[in-house]
Amino acid sequence: MVKLYTYWRSTTAYRVRIALNLKGIAYEPVPVNLVAGEQRAADYARMNPGLGVPTLVLEDGTVLTQSMAILDWLEETAPEPPLLPRDPVARARVRAAALTIAADVHPVNNLRVTQKLKEMGHSADEATAWMNDWMTRGFTALAALIPDEGPFAFGDAPGLADICLVPQIYNARRWGCDLTPFPRLTRIEAACLALPAFAAARPEAQPDAT
Amino acid sequence: MVKLYTYWRSTTAYRVRIALNLKGIAYEPVPVNLVAGEQRAADYARMNPGLGVPTLVLEDGTVLTQSMAILDWLEETAPEPPLLPRDPVARARVRAAALTIAADVHPVNNLRVTQKLKEMGHSADEATAWMNDWMTRGFTALAALIPDEGPFAFGDAPGLADICLVPQIYNARRWGCDLTPFPRLTRIEAACLALPAFAAARPEAQPDAT
Repeated sequence: MVKLYTYWRSTTAYRVRIALNLKGIAYEPVPVNLVAGEQRAADYARMNPGLGVPTLVLEDGTVLTQSMAILDWLEETAPEPPLLPRDPVARARVRAAALTIAADVHPVNNLRVTQKLKEMGHSADEATAWMNDWMTRGFTALAALIPDEGPFAFGDAPGLADICLVPQIYNARRWGCDLTPFPRLTRIEAACLALPAFAAARPEAQPDAT
Repeated sequence: MVKLYTYWRSTTAYRVRIALNLKGIAYEPVPVNLVAGEQRAADYARMNPGLGVPTLVLEDGTVLTQSMAILDWLEETAPEPPLLPRDPVARARVRAAALTIAADVHPVNNLRVTQKLKEMGHSADEATAWMNDWMTRGFTALAALIPDEGPFAFGDAPGLADICLVPQIYNARRWGCDLTPFPRLTRIEAACLALPAFAAARPEAQPDAT
């Protein structure tokens, strides 16, 4: 069985949990407590020099890092159900929507970034306002990049954009980001969380949730 | 001919310029002055709601955004020369190296992020120290994720990891980041910039360079 190094509240690990569930791939979760700094332990850092989660370890010991690279690997090795459409332009549009979260929002709100803001003298309230600003900008862009009709970000089945969006909305709710301007996005969230693959991947459902 | 909305110093536009050159695809560059805020003009924002560069407009008017999505589209529609190996695990390793720049470094150092730091009262020197910290962390991770032998990040031909690395090293030099701990990375940069596809994509070679 593959092993997934994960942290319950990590939105990037949450993406991979959803995708493994959608593809029907059983995995052994191995918790890495990011708040306690376990990602900086020498053994873990050798596997994942980026000092983050997720890390996916295959049965033969192969180590894969970076959630978006892991999702592409999954799509290439376990194509059903697909996370991306077949047409190259359609794929590029789904990828662009996913990257609006994965490249423009999440990295700027990562735990190490908010920790650094606090080291620079900012309060917890200022760090929260920082996060909510980037989420609001990203959700605004994302809402303009997806079709108006659902139920999912791109049509009748969940895919890469939904897999990136749902964890980010979890984070938005956690930090009190105002989601009322984004009804299309919260409808996508509701449609996704009604599916067992998403529900089982929720932070609250993880063995390391406290 | 395709149109590339670009800014000479944008590292994400630089990635796409390199890839178009490597694939032998001629393009018309359309400058978007990010420092002057042209990315927020209504006509541009309709094309690129993320308010960034690059934007690639195909001959039929199709609009593609997000550099990493554009690079995947290029790889899928113009497969030669390949930017990724064929084996799924090897692809995932190249993608993880590329994303160490594209997801962990660049987004945290984007112009809008350093502008926001300044709005929060930080000096230009503090913004530079911020950028250099993230670059140092990212380069440290990247050096551990790639093989020790070159000339390129993964073997004898440049690919997705090199395309992300070379623009980031440009930015590192621009902001005085100490690159002496990363000789493998600067050797990759030298090997890449010896190729016409990379040299022609350099910021200094762009029509909007000042």
